[in-house]
Amino acid sequence: MKPRLLTPGPTPTPEETLLELARPVTFHRSSQFRAIIKEVTADLQYIFCTTQPVLTITASGTGAMEAAIANTVPVGGKAICLISGRWGERWRNICKAFGVTVVEVKVPYGESVPPEALAAALKEHPDAAIVTATHSETATGARNDIKGFAAITQASSALLIVDGISGLGVMECRMDDWGVDVVVTGSQKALMLPPGLAFISLSPRAWTRVDSLYQGPSTPRTFYFDLRKYRDNLAGNDTPFTPANTLVRALRLSLKRLRDEGIENCWKRHARMARAARAAAGPLGLELLAKDPADGLTVYKLPETVDGVAILGVLEKEYGIRVAGGQDTLKGKIIRLAHMGYIDYFEVLAAVSALEMVLPKFGHAVQPGTAVSASQRAFSEGA
Amino acid sequence: MKPRLLTPGPTPTPEETLLELARPVTFHRSSQFRAIIKEVTADLQYIFCTTQPVLTITASGTGAMEAAIANTVPVGGKAICLISGRWGERWRNICKAFGVTVVEVKVPYGESVPPEALAAALKEHPDAAIVTATHSETATGARNDIKGFAAITQASSALLIVDGISGLGVMECRMDDWGVDVVVTGSQKALMLPPGLAFISLSPRAWTRVDSLYQGPSTPRTFYFDLRKYRDNLAGNDTPFTPANTLVRALRLSLKRLRDEGIENCWKRHARMARAARAAAGPLGLELLAKDPADGLTVYKLPETVDGVAILGVLEKEYGIRVAGGQDTLKGKIIRLAHMGYIDYFEVLAAVSALEMVLPKFGHAVQPGTAVSASQRAFSEGA
Repeated sequence: MKPRLLTPGPTPTPEETLLELARPVTFHRSSQFRAIIKEVTADLQYIFCTTQPVLTITASGTGAMEAAIANTVPVGGKAICLISGRWGERWRNICKAFGVTVVEVKVPYGESVPPEALAAALKEHPDAAIVTATHSETATGARNDIKGFAAITQASSALLIVDGISGLGVMECRMDDWGVDVVVTGSQKALMLPPGLAFISLSPRAWTRVDSLYQGPSTPRTFYFDLRKYRDNLAGNDTPFTPANTLVRALRLSLKRLRDEGIENCWKRHARMARAARAAAGPLGLELLAKDPADGLTVYKLPETVDGVAILGVLEKEYGIRVAGGQDTLKGKIIRLAHMGYIDYFEVLAAVSALEMVLPKFGHAVQPGTAVSASQRAFSEGA
Repeated sequence: MKPRLLTPGPTPTPEETLLELARPVTFHRSSQFRAIIKEVTADLQYIFCTTQPVLTITASGTGAMEAAIANTVPVGGKAICLISGRWGERWRNICKAFGVTVVEVKVPYGESVPPEALAAALKEHPDAAIVTATHSETATGARNDIKGFAAITQASSALLIVDGISGLGVMECRMDDWGVDVVVTGSQKALMLPPGLAFISLSPRAWTRVDSLYQGPSTPRTFYFDLRKYRDNLAGNDTPFTPANTLVRALRLSLKRLRDEGIENCWKRHARMARAARAAAGPLGLELLAKDPADGLTVYKLPETVDGVAILGVLEKEYGIRVAGGQDTLKGKIIRLAHMGYIDYFEVLAAVSALEMVLPKFGHAVQPGTAVSASQRAFSEGA
């Protein structure tokens, strides 16, 4: 069987993008590269649904998350962290590393944080400088209600900072219209690139916070992630440090693809694939971990009788299907099947087909053909 | 003419590496990728001349520089910054961003910092926590005496932190033997890759400092650059954050190339090309900016009558030769010709040939054939 990458990051890269990455390295301080920066920035603004600059940082997604925290909260400031899994915990851990006081609003793995819980936390902590949230909790497959969160933070002085790493370009997120203050994403999800670039955009009131922080007594302790440098350089279509410029060149192609499709169609495409992946759960005899599932990945809970680590190996070795398992306390207990970026429905169908064949080998009976059939029906009906 | 990239970063990437970059994206949490991490780490140790772990960070070189500062000096600590140009200033600026007290030991652009100046500064500031240095000052083409610096810092409690971004793999730097405490480099110079990865290695006494800092009252304010995470993950051939894994795969090929050549031969190759580039200066009627020039690039001073920005455009447009000009106060006054990584002597010769033809157009007479001839003689004699 052919190898098929269906992990929730990195996701596959289109062939034309791979070929672009094989083109010779070019110099980044040139009019040609400035033209590329200008073009990709405009296209990123389209994807972020913002008129604000979208900054490109050479780093993993966590680097942009660190930039968000370091630039918006002083040491001793307060953050309300909305936590529904490992990636929500990532925000908390970054805050703690920066000496930020954390108020945790936590739900069990698989659940989403209700906006009412944020409202209550903000009422109790009106001095919170920021609220952190995770659009798509990649650890559990849960979706969080960013629009609902933003409606609450907009009426407060707290900035809403959103991890859109596996959410942006997958599910509706209208930064300007909804009033989200900071959105972060990475290159290796819906943007269909190898890992290596991270992106961040800030609302006008977030920029006001950033600028005042640097002028205040508790100046941010960061140099590489000083967002003012990225903003000021971007005004001249330039970057403060040597960027991963071949990835930026490749980004141009991914963004063209998304522009051509249209961002609303892109959201619809992911939603449709997600419904088709979820529809397979019942016939496979598996439950979904997430109560309100995200559209970029589907997380199936495995019965306790199934060895959740061994099954990943069999899926890859016998059928070429590379999906992800669980992390930390979820290790061995779930299967995470991605359907975002350059993954299409027929690959989701291949994964469902492989699961139908492999689960019985682990003592979990499946009625042959039922899962692919259910998935197919859900996909057809979504047309 | 064919385009030729002769800038001091990024440098050209070998064709086989480009093709590797065009191969499909793979998952980074896998036994296959762990085997690659293990292999590249061993090869990086060979290049760094160290038995200590070499950590791979997804960032520009400045990211690893920030990691070096953030992890070794507390807020209010003291750094002696040896400055011979823009990149020495970069260390100072990072220190300042992290609230570190800076003692500058500065020489005019083009000069190198004499080790005696470091000895005097350390005598005056025995409480200095670190000393920062720049092996190859890419802004001026000057070489600094890292071995001389290390002989001094070894007898003190200050850690010697070296920017080897355009030095490592180009000029002799024996981290363990010389007693250098921290060495930083980037992917886009002697390692012959596109930009996007940075590398850092620390001596045992530097690690002791790092671990004690995190346990102390002034814990480092960083999460993404927390070097303990990289070290601890590397023990299992893993990374703390999603790495730019296609670049790591490509790195493997570059390192094989350097291993096959042998690091001493690699230093000799660069030294020989550097002599050939310098030998062209006299016949071109140009002075070298650096008194003790580095081997990765040659910096020619332009006469005041020559438009140093316009000449870059003509070199590229008419001859396909992409060299770099000066930065900041040196803008328009110098030409920086790189000869490191995947640049060979015949490309240096092409650049010298183009300069012979272009300089007269800017009113600077050159006796035809003299520069290429002198360069050729110097190269032949270096065999």
